[in-house]
Amino acid sequence: MTGGYDGQAMKAEIIAIGSELLTPDRIDTNSLYLTQKLNEAGFEVSLKSVVGDNADDIESLVRAALQRSRLIVLCGGLGPTEDDLTRVATARALRRGLTLHAEILEALRRRFAKRGYQMARINERQAEVIDGAEILNNPVGTAPGMWIEESGAFLVLLPGPPRELQAMFESQVLPRAFRLGSQKRLKQTSLSLHGLPESEVDTRIAPIYKNYPQIQTTILAVKGCISVRLQRWLGPDERAADLEELAGRIHAELGNDVFTTTDETLEEVVGRLLRQSGRSLAVAESCTAGMVASAITRVPGSSDYFRGGVICYSNELKADLCRVPNELLERHGAVSAEVAEALACGARALAHSSVGLSVTGIAGPGGGSEQKPVGLVYVGLADETRRVHARRVFPGDRATVRELATSLALGRLRRFLLRAGETA
Amino acid sequence: MTGGYDGQAMKAEIIAIGSELLTPDRIDTNSLYLTQKLNEAGFEVSLKSVVGDNADDIESLVRAALQRSRLIVLCGGLGPTEDDLTRVATARALRRGLTLHAEILEALRRRFAKRGYQMARINERQAEVIDGAEILNNPVGTAPGMWIEESGAFLVLLPGPPRELQAMFESQVLPRAFRLGSQKRLKQTSLSLHGLPESEVDTRIAPIYKNYPQIQTTILAVKGCISVRLQRWLGPDERAADLEELAGRIHAELGNDVFTTTDETLEEVVGRLLRQSGRSLAVAESCTAGMVASAITRVPGSSDYFRGGVICYSNELKADLCRVPNELLERHGAVSAEVAEALACGARALAHSSVGLSVTGIAGPGGGSEQKPVGLVYVGLADETRRVHARRVFPGDRATVRELATSLALGRLRRFLLRAGETA
Repeated sequence: MTGGYDGQAMKAEIIAIGSELLTPDRIDTNSLYLTQKLNEAGFEVSLKSVVGDNADDIESLVRAALQRSRLIVLCGGLGPTEDDLTRVATARALRRGLTLHAEILEALRRRFAKRGYQMARINERQAEVIDGAEILNNPVGTAPGMWIEESGAFLVLLPGPPRELQAMFESQVLPRAFRLGSQKRLKQTSLSLHGLPESEVDTRIAPIYKNYPQIQTTILAVKGCISVRLQRWLGPDERAADLEELAGRIHAELGNDVFTTTDETLEEVVGRLLRQSGRSLAVAESCTAGMVASAITRVPGSSDYFRGGVICYSNELKADLCRVPNELLERHGAVSAEVAEALACGARALAHSSVGLSVTGIAGPGGGSEQKPVGLVYVGLADETRRVHARRVFPGDRATVRELATSLALGRLRRFLLRAGETA
Repeated sequence: MTGGYDGQAMKAEIIAIGSELLTPDRIDTNSLYLTQKLNEAGFEVSLKSVVGDNADDIESLVRAALQRSRLIVLCGGLGPTEDDLTRVATARALRRGLTLHAEILEALRRRFAKRGYQMARINERQAEVIDGAEILNNPVGTAPGMWIEESGAFLVLLPGPPRELQAMFESQVLPRAFRLGSQKRLKQTSLSLHGLPESEVDTRIAPIYKNYPQIQTTILAVKGCISVRLQRWLGPDERAADLEELAGRIHAELGNDVFTTTDETLEEVVGRLLRQSGRSLAVAESCTAGMVASAITRVPGSSDYFRGGVICYSNELKADLCRVPNELLERHGAVSAEVAEALACGARALAHSSVGLSVTGIAGPGGGSEQKPVGLVYVGLADETRRVHARRVFPGDRATVRELATSLALGRLRRFLLRAGETA
């Protein structure tokens, strides 16, 4: 079906299924991932819907979608329970049957057996396949997906849990979507930075990106980092030279605060810098209580440069394990520049690492005072020759303060690793 | 129109309009606010859609919505620009005309003049009203809304900016929605548990909840915990006795695995148990590297019972800080029942806490072997008299294994705190 579409991007549509997504507490976020991937494959997402666990509603939505979209992605409702109705409702919309698939059934039984459970009867529904569908394997969970052609349109059924959906989409749906042959491609590039507020970023780069009206520029703030995304639809003979040019000019304006132009996370960048320089890291965390270490160890292979450290929530652990003198704690308090630096030195000493990193602060809601308000955070850093700290007062609730403190620690660690001569 | 609807909650549907809501970076959040308010007024939201600035797509969605829903809320696309198409498309779907409304036009002109601007011609579109619509004033912005009756169904057009939408919904739409006279109200209750797979939970409780067809039962799996939510629409003279009765019977069936019936998180439950018994906690985390401590300290005031602990990512830290004998590490390996228990004892000793908790495992993707595969996790627990452990092999990628290991640690800690005589 290559090249069947002329000039324009092809229409895709996303349908999320699950009554829990129609409550005031939950939102469909799979569609954000799917939209990005579909755009890359030359599809424009023209409609998104969320529908409850109601077979009639699902059936009528699928019927309507088949009238207007080339590719329809359904997410969720493939589990084993009574209210997982996507298989049945889609089969009805297509006027096709459902057949129990012996191999899938056997794989399900083995999967349960391996974990020491006997498979409950109800799981058999997950082995039912719509007649004529290609099966999409689920390497992460139990529910397989399906790829179905119907009168020139294509339907994809995927499970709702994001990890399962993403693993299956990447390996099995995306190659098929590319083969459907849109001539348009959404080209994009992005850069991320840490250390500047969103409004300052926009004030500085708006005079630059306004000269490129053909490019869509979006600025997003997530957990203390700012991402600038540049996007443009390109025809088969068009080059994205202007996209690279604009990215280069924005990078030049924002300078060293930019930590990636290749979608690396801050913890990946820090890990790469540690690995490249053959240095190792240890942490002492008070208010973040392990969040910095959790982030650093999200990166596979981080045990090569990360030793571990101390969660020094109590003052006793700050003194006993990190060897912060009691006199320092009494004179300056646990949340102070002096204690932050002493903790960084202590972490480094006890783990015999090249670099020590510490966080101490008041996450709230209690514990604040006039001199030391809720949101006050110190990050300390130490190596063989340097002891430095950074101080911030973050706005927001307990969770926000802890998240921003974690980002600050990683951002300052990056600067510390980059510039051996600088005081952070 | 009071009481026109019999028995069921009335169906409402939300349509968000704007191409910017179909990018990978933006999400419709107005629908969360609207869902809560509509539920309060006795409406069940059965469908949500997001559609781009395309008149044909909007028109066909409005037509379909009128077939199935009593109340349809459209948000966005009421501004002055070329791509604000909600008025035109809705008028077409209803086969009605649009008429320039002199009073609105005059109010718009005054509004611009007051701020020192002459109104641009294009703004006149905002004064166009669908024939037969009631006008909803916008006290915050320029675009007025509309309330339209069509063959017993009702359409509401509201601007997209949340401040404008909420102000108008609260003062002008909600009173009208209440007058539509659903006598129904949504009542709900939930319980959460740890330690059983989703399919086993469903198999055990389905025979119970099937006896209550008037109650909607939803089972959700999130990060190793399962939530069972029970919802029922109640009429004016009905009591929710059956909701409590069903919750009680499900609780009795699932027994001690249920950790909350009041929406507490596992870390809140563990915190409450520690506080009530006057005990304190310390941790030694290897593969979770601070995730258990991060979870425990999400709870405000957790410093009352949480001392801190060690992130013993390297074997040196397991031996040096947690006093795990090198012989034990060599004979059994770092990921073993023996080392898990020794780590729990070590954490307890170094922090002088009542209880010690440890996690050691292979999160992957590297580091697995035939005897010790990726996903193998041990949790250790120790107090003054007990040393116990739990073993699991979790499926999934690095992030999943670490999340499930964190849940296992908290779930086992809860059991350990509850039952002083039991081996976990």
